[in-house]
This record gives sequence, structure tokens and C-alpha cells, in this order.
Amino acid sequence: MAGKFITFEGTDGAGKTTILNMVLEYLKDTMGDQLVTSREPGGNPIAESIREVILDRQNIEMDKRTEALLYAAARRQNIEQTVKPAIAANKLVICDRYLDSSIAYQGGGRQIGEKEIYEMNQFATEGFLPDLTIYFNLPVEEGLKRIAQNRNENDIDRLDVETIDFHNRVYDAYQRLAKQQPERIKSVDATQSIDAVYQNVLEILQPYLEEFKK
Amino acid sequence: MAGKFITFEGTDGAGKTTILNMVLEYLKDTMGDQLVTSREPGGNPIAESIREVILDRQNIEMDKRTEALLYAAARRQNIEQTVKPAIAANKLVICDRYLDSSIAYQGGGRQIGEKEIYEMNQFATEGFLPDLTIYFNLPVEEGLKRIAQNRNENDIDRLDVETIDFHNRVYDAYQRLAKQQPERIKSVDATQSIDAVYQNVLEILQPYLEEFKK
Repeated sequence: MAGKFITFEGTDGAGKTTILNMVLEYLKDTMGDQLVTSREPGGNPIAESIREVILDRQNIEMDKRTEALLYAAARRQNIEQTVKPAIAANKLVICDRYLDSSIAYQGGGRQIGEKEIYEMNQFATEGFLPDLTIYFNLPVEEGLKRIAQNRNENDIDRLDVETIDFHNRVYDAYQRLAKQQPERIKSVDATQSIDAVYQNVLEILQPYLEEFKK
Repeated sequence: MAGKFITFEGTDGAGKTTILNMVLEYLKDTMGDQLVTSREPGGNPIAESIREVILDRQNIEMDKRTEALLYAAARRQNIEQTVKPAIAANKLVICDRYLDSSIAYQGGGRQIGEKEIYEMNQFATEGFLPDLTIYFNLPVEEGLKRIAQNRNENDIDRLDVETIDFHNRVYDAYQRLAKQQPERIKSVDATQSIDAVYQNVLEILQPYLEEFKK
């Protein structure tokens, strides 16, 4: 038996965090300390201090390539110090976002280029990929509608054309990734009810959980 | 007239910092606000906050590729936010260390590979190189002797075989860079007296300073 590395991916408003929390609640009960949870950027003290630099930034002043390099640095530290040792100890590691997020957000969204982000990240990951990635697939307009509903009326105006273009580019990049790597990336229809999405995710996870019950 | 970007490079103990301070003292008097000084990692608030993560690290826990990515992130932010705008404003930018340091220390010293470090840094620099690099060339044994003299007796023991091997790899990488790019990298014999090295550096700088006197 060996450990597993599973990541959750998706655009804003797709319900990824809500479902992830439900899944972790369920797995904590059934798996106990066989489960290790992580998130990007972050996951351990050094990676969390890099996260602080990313989030502390005055957005306008941080160059988008600086940001991409910081995400890659936090990623490297997380996989070397947290994910790989846990997998070697036969744990199930579930991580909120990974490489695909950088390709979609920095490569597609911020237009650095998906290939450029992928290649720079090879320095960080050395080809280390998840065993499974669950991708919450939600059309952009639906996601933006959900985000708007969770904000007050004044915020809705801010979802201007530029924002919609940005989210469209992120979505398109995710769609390309899911198409290119169907073995690893399992797409979930996030337009369904929360409960239906949750059941769907559990079904996808089941074969990977079997190994830990032995 | 356009600005210039000049970097100072060298191994530990080569006298780079001592001479750099003498040069900056001289240039401040003669050039006033035409001079912009910077350092790596750092140079502006975001890059300095990345510097803090690098220096704050518990050495054993920070992966060497994480460190290399953080240097590249700080480099990107420094050139985009500080160096390039200053050059566009016709300033002379003098920076303590740049890309060559990463190639020598992370690529050679830490054995990530000079080519790997160079290629990853292309994401950060997009080919942006100094107009001139002054390289303080000092044999490793001489450098380690100088460092030891500036420490107390107990510290000398720490310069063990591993340290010497590390410094040899850094030195060899610098030698290769100087040989590969003789037009950009001007080597200074750092075994000379401080005053002789200082005069040597001023001679090399002179043609680049002429343009600012017009």
C-alpha cells in the first residue's frame, strides 16, 4: 500500500470549498490520522509565510510573475516538507488547489501563458502530480452570479467586463487541462445541488479510499 | 542617453561589499540623484518581505528549490518595480548581486544545476541582463582565510570539508560565467590590496560613467 495525493480544483464560486469541507468532515471520521489535509499556497510554516507575502501584497505593486514564482515556491515547500513525507507514510493527502490553479489563474487568467507557467513550475514540482484531481466545473456566469449573491448590491457593479474576461480565461484553461488529462482530472458538474455534487465527489473518491480500509 | 544597470558579484570574503561601499560613496558625491542603489534579495518593500522569508528560514527546513524560487521572485519584483523604471529615467543602477549569484550559489554551490537555475530564472528576468557586471575573483582558500580572520577561533572549525566543497563549486560556476560572457562580466583580481582593487573597479566603471557627465 502507498499513500495518495488528491487535489481539489475549480473557478471561484464553484462550491469547491463547501464540498471540500463536507468531504474532510466525512473522511476525518472514517480515516482518522490516515488523512492529511493541506492547502495552497501554504501547508506548513515556511509555505504559510510565503502565503502571507502573497496575500499581504498591495495588489497593484506586485508583478504577476513575482506572484507566480511565490506560488511555485510555496508549492515546492509544501510538497517536499508535507505532501511527499505523508505519502511515504501511507497517508491520504487532500490538498485545496495545486499546479492546475497556477496554470489556470496565472497562465490563463493573468495571461502569462499556460505553457510558461507549466514549464517554470517543473522546476518546483519536478513532475510530481496528484493521483487524482477533482475539478468543479461551473460555467463562469453561474459562478459570478453565486459570488454576487453572497455580496451586497454595491459589490455587483464591480463584476465588470475585465473581471468576466479574466474568469473566462481561467475557466477555459481549466477546460483545456481537464480535456488533456482525463485520467487524472475528473470533472464534476457543479451546477447540481450541493448534495448531488457531494455524492458525485464521494463516488469518484471511493476507489482511492478502498486501499486505506485494508 | 539611457540608464545603465551594473551589478557586483563574487564569492564570500572577496571584498565585494567593502569595495561596493567605497564606490557608492564616491558616486553619491559625483552623481547625486542620478545614482540608484539596490541589492538582492530585496530593493523594494515587496522584495524585502521576500528577503525576510529567505533569511528568516530555519535553514534545515527550507528546500533548496524553494529558496531558488524565492530569490527569483525577489529578483523579478526588483527589476520590474525598481531597476527598469530607474533605467527608463536615465539613472545609473548599481545592484549588489543579481542572476549570476543564483547560478553560482544555487546552481553550482547547492548543486541544483547551473542550467536549471538559468532557465527557471528566464521566467523572472525575461532575458534582462546588466550592462556590466564586476566580478571579484578570489581563490576559495584565500576567501575562507579572510572569513576565518574576521571570526573568533571557535568558528574556524566550522569551515569543514563540506563548506570548502560548497565554496569551490560556487567559485567554479563564477569562473565559467566570466569565461562565457567576457563582454558583460569584467573580472577583478581580488587578491590585490583594497586600494588597488578599488582603483581597478573605478577604471572599469569609467566608460559607463562618462555618459552621465554629458
